[in-house]
Amino acid sequence: MGYEEYTIEGRNAVIEALRAQKPIDRLFILDGCSDGPVSTIKREAKKNDVQVKFVEKERLDQMSVTGHHQGVIAKCAAYEYAEVDDILKKAAEKGEDPFIILLDGIEDPHNLGAIIRSANMAGAHGVIIPKNRAAGLTATVARTSAGAINYTPVAKVTNLARTIDELKEKGIWFACADMDGQIMYGQNLTGPIGLVIGSEGDGVSRLVREKCDYVCAIPTRGDIDSLNASVAAGVLMFETVRQRLSGKK
Amino acid sequence: MGYEEYTIEGRNAVIEALRAQKPIDRLFILDGCSDGPVSTIKREAKKNDVQVKFVEKERLDQMSVTGHHQGVIAKCAAYEYAEVDDILKKAAEKGEDPFIILLDGIEDPHNLGAIIRSANMAGAHGVIIPKNRAAGLTATVARTSAGAINYTPVAKVTNLARTIDELKEKGIWFACADMDGQIMYGQNLTGPIGLVIGSEGDGVSRLVREKCDYVCAIPTRGDIDSLNASVAAGVLMFETVRQRLSGKK
Repeated sequence: MGYEEYTIEGRNAVIEALRAQKPIDRLFILDGCSDGPVSTIKREAKKNDVQVKFVEKERLDQMSVTGHHQGVIAKCAAYEYAEVDDILKKAAEKGEDPFIILLDGIEDPHNLGAIIRSANMAGAHGVIIPKNRAAGLTATVARTSAGAINYTPVAKVTNLARTIDELKEKGIWFACADMDGQIMYGQNLTGPIGLVIGSEGDGVSRLVREKCDYVCAIPTRGDIDSLNASVAAGVLMFETVRQRLSGKK
Repeated sequence: MGYEEYTIEGRNAVIEALRAQKPIDRLFILDGCSDGPVSTIKREAKKNDVQVKFVEKERLDQMSVTGHHQGVIAKCAAYEYAEVDDILKKAAEKGEDPFIILLDGIEDPHNLGAIIRSANMAGAHGVIIPKNRAAGLTATVARTSAGAINYTPVAKVTNLARTIDELKEKGIWFACADMDGQIMYGQNLTGPIGLVIGSEGDGVSRLVREKCDYVCAIPTRGDIDSLNASVAAGVLMFETVRQRLSGKK
């Protein structure tokens, strides 16, 4: 498929990339560095809402491909992100109720890829991920999505809770997956819906959970704590498919 | 958790391990090597049904931890495999109809680990994997199973089709996952059941598929070919859970 994550290294290259609004996933800056060009980079990063990490020189040396990073390395996704509106448009074009997957902090790129793959196969119209503390669209995600990344739009938003509020105004209902919820078979997942999947470690964050109309539990009965995040996402997505197929209202 | 995959290197060490019936996952022998000790190793491996791979010297050098492999390296699982009977006993102890997951050639250890994790959470009594062309119980599997490997027995069998025949005689029905089957909601997955999941690339093999009472399709509608194997397994397992909970007969 030939999708690749790439790095942009060096002060001028990174400043140009920021000004050209390239899809930068993460920006790494040498800790303690604050001269003129680096200040410009920080300012541009802030303006573009790009996440900055301050790291040691050893880390930058390891990441560097060219060997000339000058204290600044940007990691770019080879994929362009969609807008939330693109997802709604896709549903409208198909004449279907919006069916959206929201990921509240999935950090493992394999899980993100598998979830995009499942979303595509379940007929969801798109995936929404938060800008911070989450995996972005990297080469690993592309590979584990098995090509689904080319069909299923992925939007990146600054504040997931706010996005949920905006989508609620458009008539979309929200259900999150949580062990403490009610068994999902009894919940109504038909109609315009957003399914919220929490992070691998912490599940759905409190603020996001409070926004949800339903808290859905998968009926587990094992000896361990939880399902893998991409499996839980798949199970909830296909329960939604089942309810939609059976015409449950 | 402290589980580790370990290697046994060198001719005498490997011969001893084979005679002691250590849980050897795979045996790597230098291609073209056929002197006395190596012949003994090949004979013992055959007797113990251990899979042998003939590889180049560079590969052995790469795998070697000690640097003294003498043309022979055995990879051992740090986990003991269960017997199929242990799985049936577990169901009997719980007073439940047997619920077994059979994997027809899952090769990715992350998928195997995630499936063992899902099997545990779905209340399945055990997992059966084939001896050849499949991932074994390695450190990676243990980690991705999130501890489920300590609770859910995993049995390794020489011939999956024959095992299915034996279990059918005990009244267990078999359903395999395949896109060409009938939608799973209409299939009866209650009662004593074995769910068969195919390999990542090829799905369920013809011989195994022919043994199955049901061929179940997950109702997908995407642009790509298939779900991730561990997601498909999870979705089918929890459809089984749904049917059992709803008392569908």
